[in-house]
Amino acid sequence: MPDLRRDPITGRWVIISTQRAHRPQDFIREPVRIKGGPCPFCPGNESKTPPEILAYRPEGNEHNGAGWKVRVVPNRYPALEIEGQLDRQAEGIYDRMNGTGAHEVVIESPEHGDTYATMPERRIEDALFAFRDRVTDLRKDTRLKYVLIFKNHGEGAGATLEHAHSQIIALPIVPRQVVEELKGARDYFQLKDRCIYCDIVHQETRSPVRVVLENDNFLVVAPYAPRFPFETWIIPKRHDSAFENSPADYFGGLARAIKTLAAKLDAVLDFPAFNMVIHSAPVHDHPTEHYHWHVEFMPRLTKVAGFEWGTGFYINPTSPEEAAKFLRDAKVKA
Amino acid sequence: MPDLRRDPITGRWVIISTQRAHRPQDFIREPVRIKGGPCPFCPGNESKTPPEILAYRPEGNEHNGAGWKVRVVPNRYPALEIEGQLDRQAEGIYDRMNGTGAHEVVIESPEHGDTYATMPERRIEDALFAFRDRVTDLRKDTRLKYVLIFKNHGEGAGATLEHAHSQIIALPIVPRQVVEELKGARDYFQLKDRCIYCDIVHQETRSPVRVVLENDNFLVVAPYAPRFPFETWIIPKRHDSAFENSPADYFGGLARAIKTLAAKLDAVLDFPAFNMVIHSAPVHDHPTEHYHWHVEFMPRLTKVAGFEWGTGFYINPTSPEEAAKFLRDAKVKA
Repeated sequence: MPDLRRDPITGRWVIISTQRAHRPQDFIREPVRIKGGPCPFCPGNESKTPPEILAYRPEGNEHNGAGWKVRVVPNRYPALEIEGQLDRQAEGIYDRMNGTGAHEVVIESPEHGDTYATMPERRIEDALFAFRDRVTDLRKDTRLKYVLIFKNHGEGAGATLEHAHSQIIALPIVPRQVVEELKGARDYFQLKDRCIYCDIVHQETRSPVRVVLENDNFLVVAPYAPRFPFETWIIPKRHDSAFENSPADYFGGLARAIKTLAAKLDAVLDFPAFNMVIHSAPVHDHPTEHYHWHVEFMPRLTKVAGFEWGTGFYINPTSPEEAAKFLRDAKVKA
Repeated sequence: MPDLRRDPITGRWVIISTQRAHRPQDFIREPVRIKGGPCPFCPGNESKTPPEILAYRPEGNEHNGAGWKVRVVPNRYPALEIEGQLDRQAEGIYDRMNGTGAHEVVIESPEHGDTYATMPERRIEDALFAFRDRVTDLRKDTRLKYVLIFKNHGEGAGATLEHAHSQIIALPIVPRQVVEELKGARDYFQLKDRCIYCDIVHQETRSPVRVVLENDNFLVVAPYAPRFPFETWIIPKRHDSAFENSPADYFGGLARAIKTLAAKLDAVLDFPAFNMVIHSAPVHDHPTEHYHWHVEFMPRLTKVAGFEWGTGFYINPTSPEEAAKFLRDAKVKA
């Protein structure tokens, strides 16, 4: 019998389909392989990107020259533009505003072939610090209400360049799914006087059937009602509503969790494409007791997703308990 | 400058990206071509599907034999199962129920190679009558709260069999996106005492820059804030909250609109894969003044959708005004 499960935050129901049960080998996969070739993100090609916004490099080294560890540049084809007044208009019954915002690329390593699974933990940590530094800079701009940090890994996940990078989009609005999460978390808090994510951490730790791994500060779990096979969340054990307000000594643990999870996904699913999204509170919100930042990984395994996009209704052929067991049992270099 | 637009029903903002502007020829496409070969949906192979639930065939012809025009059968790999009590349970902080429901396939033509663009209008009309007949039957089951009718056309849209068919999923819950649409439409009605969809029909007709085509009873438009390039909606001009309550003489006009739209999509986008979803009120709701059923077409043009799934935040490289112009100007056999 299939299982209908409700995500406790958003209220979204998903079907965990037993009839279509998929184990890792059942998915049609195009493994993500690094091909190499000319790359605007490689050291020596700094002039092929717009001038850098931020870079971590040894003191004294030249801006926009080589020698950097992490480099943040504007996206050459930005979805939003930083210049200009925020102009809001009605068009009859419709509402629009001009696309003011920022669209940046975080080049996470000087090594072309690095992935989260293979790069040194320290490099991932540096990328996380770069995310934080960019958010704390962008939030000074009062026009910008939300900063979205995400990674498309592999062509199947929407990446057009293979050199390790993530993207930052700063928006003059809060995206709908964030609004829903915030509302769901607030509703739960009003009912229970507890944070829903803290409750998830407790329940999953007590009965660890969906736990993938755990370290001092982070719990990595397959969520109870995943939309996608092998969807996995990294939740900080300490309550904090915003990623950028995490204590500096948290970033090492997060880097370790990301690296191990990425390596386990590679081992179990044969180098899948994936999207990673950091879910965090809107940048001008004061810290709240009800929202809890976290990171979501969504491997892209089902070659096509059918109508889910258009309906918000998901059929998932792999239960999170099974997915977690595969990932938990996968042996990877720590 | 990119354009941020708000969908007036759901409140979802999308970016219409001018930097990444895409005309029809810019999309990576895998044209949907009919390959033929053994097919469980072809006449003569009736025994290869579960026994039929409904079929339109000349009187006296045998059940589960050939000679049918439209045939509805249970899905061989159902996402939900019709037998069993609806069992709701808590699992600590989580909620689940067993997957009670129905999952049916509507085989829309005896001809293997038929598509909405090529099949006679009358066949599409018969398929629409079959949708209606199944909804009116399924709604007798009080466990079922929502009936979703959708079509995946082409492998790129999730179809596993190429013979023309749609699917019906009857659910014990109302999917989240439907809940949002209902709420958005109700909120608008409370504010304005008018149906938002009726307002859309009026505004789009007055200034037809996003109109693709129109017939006596239906308006076909590119919506103001489309998530996807060439997303197109078919809206009945007469207010009705449920598809299945439409007057019988409406189905001919809808079939004509579907056929012409499908032919125009084929002409402009070189036989794209697409998803079609009928948006209708929950089956046990009384007719309401605020909700208005309609049909959404979503061509699958961007080979991968990146992080949109995980964020509810969409970047669309083609403006609806441009998309509508291409579709409007496409010459197809009427």
